[in-house]
Amino acid sequence: MKILMSVPNISEGRNRDVVEQVADAIRHTPGVKLIDYSSDPDHNRSVLTYLGEPEAVLEASKAMAAKAFELIDMAQQQGSHPRMGAVDVAPFIPIRHMDTAEAIEISRQFGRFVGELGVPVYYYRESATRPEWYDLPTIRKGQYEALPEKLKDLATWQPDEGPAVFNAKAGAMVTGCRFPLIAFNVNLRTTDVSIAKRIGEAVRYKNGGFRYVQGMGLALEEQGMVQVSMNLTNYLETPLPRVLETVRMEAARHGVAVAGTEIIGTIPLGAIEEIMKHYVQAHDFKLDQIIEMALLE
Amino acid sequence: MKILMSVPNISEGRNRDVVEQVADAIRHTPGVKLIDYSSDPDHNRSVLTYLGEPEAVLEASKAMAAKAFELIDMAQQQGSHPRMGAVDVAPFIPIRHMDTAEAIEISRQFGRFVGELGVPVYYYRESATRPEWYDLPTIRKGQYEALPEKLKDLATWQPDEGPAVFNAKAGAMVTGCRFPLIAFNVNLRTTDVSIAKRIGEAVRYKNGGFRYVQGMGLALEEQGMVQVSMNLTNYLETPLPRVLETVRMEAARHGVAVAGTEIIGTIPLGAIEEIMKHYVQAHDFKLDQIIEMALLE
Repeated sequence: MKILMSVPNISEGRNRDVVEQVADAIRHTPGVKLIDYSSDPDHNRSVLTYLGEPEAVLEASKAMAAKAFELIDMAQQQGSHPRMGAVDVAPFIPIRHMDTAEAIEISRQFGRFVGELGVPVYYYRESATRPEWYDLPTIRKGQYEALPEKLKDLATWQPDEGPAVFNAKAGAMVTGCRFPLIAFNVNLRTTDVSIAKRIGEAVRYKNGGFRYVQGMGLALEEQGMVQVSMNLTNYLETPLPRVLETVRMEAARHGVAVAGTEIIGTIPLGAIEEIMKHYVQAHDFKLDQIIEMALLE
Repeated sequence: MKILMSVPNISEGRNRDVVEQVADAIRHTPGVKLIDYSSDPDHNRSVLTYLGEPEAVLEASKAMAAKAFELIDMAQQQGSHPRMGAVDVAPFIPIRHMDTAEAIEISRQFGRFVGELGVPVYYYRESATRPEWYDLPTIRKGQYEALPEKLKDLATWQPDEGPAVFNAKAGAMVTGCRFPLIAFNVNLRTTDVSIAKRIGEAVRYKNGGFRYVQGMGLALEEQGMVQVSMNLTNYLETPLPRVLETVRMEAARHGVAVAGTEIIGTIPLGAIEEIMKHYVQAHDFKLDQIIEMALLE
């Protein structure tokens, strides 16, 4: 069974009724499971998480977007979180038995659907059509308010789908395939925050570290420790064990030990396969060997 | 969601029609998934694996046993595998959100059902009523052919359920709760099989090793390596990482490295939780953090 996940961010986090109606559009799509949704009133933004087989997730996304475009008016919207559309960003995340190409294709089908509703659409991450559109903040620069100007500069801002025309109610949307992100923190048995900062720099892409690691060092004052706080943005290309063991190695030359780690939020089973192969050295381990997986088929 | 597994062994591995009818009895029970079944004609024995919520698995087991008692006649049965009944042994294995006590209770309900059909029943493993009945071979000693004699010696062989009367067609049955067994092999980068044998003895219960480890050393001639081949019979009390690291430590003092490991067959997610906690040091890791687990709820 193929599993795709989507985690759209919509620009409504105050009106509970609107959020429930958008959630219902997902819930009522057969074959899709809405596993979480939460709203931030300050941000005026909600995040919805659902998964299922790819076609079902595509259908749920269409229903979700149609309802959000109906109920949210960006001309009235205010909030502390950067945004440029009623459906601000809708990532598609391959979870199981799906490769990147398949997830990109789903994101394109979704983009075309939204474009046909008259909303400018930009592709990001693995679906990006220009290297500079890989990251969301670049595309969203200037936010909703900048859209009228940007849509006059078509050499730079021609949308991937939909009309190159400002849509005052819906704004614009970003979608694409991205990998599941693993929020991974390593706690170190020292109070010297400079060690955590140096290790954060050593492992992150920005300073010459691993390609799919974002990282920083910070103090955990109450616990009397420091932390290397990381996002692993592609667990297949930069597996968790390799990152953890590099942190451990860098800490060791300061005489500092790893006290523990935290996985914040969720982790895909695929990442666990890497862990089995690295630490248990079970080179041929397959996720299908997990007894409970039989229930997912 | 609670998940219980059962893996009964029935004394028919030649007549495909009989095996299919027994499999159908399981397949037709709502809420149960038959994930595997296989027959060995030499052994004249079949193993069926199914899982689901505990009550559903109990119902499937009743249907399975009733069908097997109807179709298999032990008075005619011959095969190379030791056996004493048409349903020779039916273990109940707690997989998820179930403790040992709950699985023992299911095994007792099943035992009473089979007893009421007129079949002598003995409880083994966690359900055993006498310490000497913990292991199946002890209870099965002398096999089917010894049952008439044993059932005259009630001080030693009074069944836990059912009549203390020889049932020529059904024989006797063993059931009980046992933990999922993990078949775990560690390959060592040497051709000296004595090292594998010594390590097998060092880690196994029989010779002073871990309580829930059975182990032996053997040569992998084609691969030019040796193997410590183990069964881990309770991954909660004797976790896999502790066993692997002990094998590694013992190998290291002979200057031998671990080349790889193999997990043969299946492993429960619970064992993976132990691996995350040990190697990744994610002390608070919960299986619910695995994205796909949302689909099992």
